[in-house]
Amino acid sequence: MNTAMNTAQAGFRPTELFAERMSIIPTSFIREILKVTVRPEIISFAGGLPNPQFFPVDAIKAASEKVLSSDGRTVLQYSTTEGYLPLREWIAAWYKERQGLAISPDEILITNGSQQGIDLLGKVFLDKGSEVVIEKPGYLGAIQSLTAYQPAFIGVTLNDDGVDTEQLASVYETRRPKMFCAIPNFQNPSGLSYAADVRERVADVVERHNTFVVEDDPYGALRFKGQAQPSLKHYLGDQAVLFGSFSKIVAPGLRLGWIVAAKPIMEKLVIAKQASDLHSNYFAQRTMHQYLVDNNVDDHIAKICAAYGKQCDVMLNAIDTYFPHEVKTTRPEGGMFLWVTLPEGCSSMDLFDKAIKQNVAFVPGTPFYVDGSGTNTMRLNFTNTDEERLVEGIQRLGVAIEEMLGVPA
Amino acid sequence: MNTAMNTAQAGFRPTELFAERMSIIPTSFIREILKVTVRPEIISFAGGLPNPQFFPVDAIKAASEKVLSSDGRTVLQYSTTEGYLPLREWIAAWYKERQGLAISPDEILITNGSQQGIDLLGKVFLDKGSEVVIEKPGYLGAIQSLTAYQPAFIGVTLNDDGVDTEQLASVYETRRPKMFCAIPNFQNPSGLSYAADVRERVADVVERHNTFVVEDDPYGALRFKGQAQPSLKHYLGDQAVLFGSFSKIVAPGLRLGWIVAAKPIMEKLVIAKQASDLHSNYFAQRTMHQYLVDNNVDDHIAKICAAYGKQCDVMLNAIDTYFPHEVKTTRPEGGMFLWVTLPEGCSSMDLFDKAIKQNVAFVPGTPFYVDGSGTNTMRLNFTNTDEERLVEGIQRLGVAIEEMLGVPA
Repeated sequence: MNTAMNTAQAGFRPTELFAERMSIIPTSFIREILKVTVRPEIISFAGGLPNPQFFPVDAIKAASEKVLSSDGRTVLQYSTTEGYLPLREWIAAWYKERQGLAISPDEILITNGSQQGIDLLGKVFLDKGSEVVIEKPGYLGAIQSLTAYQPAFIGVTLNDDGVDTEQLASVYETRRPKMFCAIPNFQNPSGLSYAADVRERVADVVERHNTFVVEDDPYGALRFKGQAQPSLKHYLGDQAVLFGSFSKIVAPGLRLGWIVAAKPIMEKLVIAKQASDLHSNYFAQRTMHQYLVDNNVDDHIAKICAAYGKQCDVMLNAIDTYFPHEVKTTRPEGGMFLWVTLPEGCSSMDLFDKAIKQNVAFVPGTPFYVDGSGTNTMRLNFTNTDEERLVEGIQRLGVAIEEMLGVPA
Repeated sequence: MNTAMNTAQAGFRPTELFAERMSIIPTSFIREILKVTVRPEIISFAGGLPNPQFFPVDAIKAASEKVLSSDGRTVLQYSTTEGYLPLREWIAAWYKERQGLAISPDEILITNGSQQGIDLLGKVFLDKGSEVVIEKPGYLGAIQSLTAYQPAFIGVTLNDDGVDTEQLASVYETRRPKMFCAIPNFQNPSGLSYAADVRERVADVVERHNTFVVEDDPYGALRFKGQAQPSLKHYLGDQAVLFGSFSKIVAPGLRLGWIVAAKPIMEKLVIAKQASDLHSNYFAQRTMHQYLVDNNVDDHIAKICAAYGKQCDVMLNAIDTYFPHEVKTTRPEGGMFLWVTLPEGCSSMDLFDKAIKQNVAFVPGTPFYVDGSGTNTMRLNFTNTDEERLVEGIQRLGVAIEEMLGVPA
């Protein structure tokens, strides 16, 4: 060791070496906000966390013990890129049972949460400049992941009953998008869902072109009100790539989601997954499968739905009480978020500063819009705050809004 | 549900939508080989699996129980992109203790095995056509992962004492590589290590240019012979990005590795990691940390080293006995692989077919060469076969080699 460690190379300028894509991937805005909201006095509606009260800790513990005791040396070894077959079979059976969808386990790839599914899809399909349609507002995680592949995003307005299908049709008449990213159930960030007739019209548009829908459905099982609608996959078959996740129905810390895709796409996804990280955590896959086999996950989901429905009601009632009437709110039938629209001309970024002074936080809407609009919108999460603090937080937010609107508090 | 699922869209031609990169990422050749080698009668030296006999199953079980019992709701929740801080602190302390390297936990990012580290590095640094130097032969996983970013690979010969530093210097005189991918300890595939003077000369070349070494070191702790050499990071400081992994020293099924990088690079890696899958499995991180705290991992590694050293000796002795003298073999001081060179003009692909008939398998060398050379080379793994079958397999392979060389069996 005759050379001292060189700690400050004058000649090393890594910033000059970064790929072009790194100059355009946005830092997660939510991540920055979450740094502010760790202060305990702040009531935060900014995160997107499920309520940990419903994590089946003891059952996961029993499942992990069981797989390690019975098959430890295999559970801790390298495994297949596609994922544990019995877990994929369980997912296929679940679709059959809950949605009547006939999906083969060979059409399922296990991923690190559905977030990785988006990244893999970008890797498989997107060249620089490839066109991608996304809802306005759209899922921020998809915008971030896909931006790494330098596509051209085309935003299509999300109405109260789902994506604007006239706009969608007109986009497909003039452009050649490879994919349309949609969250038809309890969308993140808006909490909105597609009505049945909107789903049919989306399918009509898509099947007339050589394109597909990325149907991201992490929240679909979290319905606490109203009637489930058929998935876009039901109408579109192979022209839908469907994403699912255990993060919201079991627990996110295990980082397990999946992609459902037709065989020619799946072949490429498997190659992309292998190039990305060989395979998903096998211990977690085996533990999750054991948990699903030994427990009634539908009963578990029913409990989560009941609780989230109540939390959503509490937030909406508080909004009715404490927000000025000119502020509009979505009324979700499931999921984890609702969406607030301030009067035209108001800025939710300005409101954010005032809200932090009142010790309450949320996510301003603009980062969810690929065209930089949505200035007067914001996202509220209702699943990770107890009822008392839900009411208190909305009351504080009401004070901030009234201050901004010039109404004396 | 008034529209039947459309199972065969005449109009949907996904292959026309694939990104350009998907036409060049090689399917894993090893993966294809492994499909052949599942037959129980085949003795396979083709895989790269650690010996599961040394997986600390009971200790991992105790660790996972402990973290779930004491902190289950946090363990199963979303977590930070950078990874569990105490785990990063443990890794930093380990470098200090074993190698005298001063690394801050802030310079460490937890990844899904070190394979994901390579992918993230590609995402952060490589544009289409960016130049990357890699050893000849080089790590196949790196070639696959980085190919997704469409770089121009430049191969530099690996000699018995490490990379050819004259070739390396001349590459840097005429080209502008962003990075040089090196495995200085018990390289995959060759089993070779860099001598101390080669390390110094590599550092001399690298520090004269605005570039860095990707120092992939999954096997460094698995030394069963000879003297450890300082890492390239020791000489190069921030101009080395160092990769580590728990896969070979604890267990691969938990998919946990890490990247050590200087702060400006780390900032970009964190953004890339977040866009890829938010964060690595938190339950696995917590379990691994608890395992490391509650057990003496150095004692555990010493046991693995002793066993692998013996397995390597058994294979080398069998080679000396059963292979014709014109066949050359590396004599590794650690790791999991050794490298065989057949006489000039022989093809290890041809040998593979003959070997399968003898019920023995290996990986032909060509896929490890970015320039398609290495026709007469092959990789043998010695860690995942018991001693009796090691001898039997080498004897069978000797028969196949003699058959190919025209020597009567």
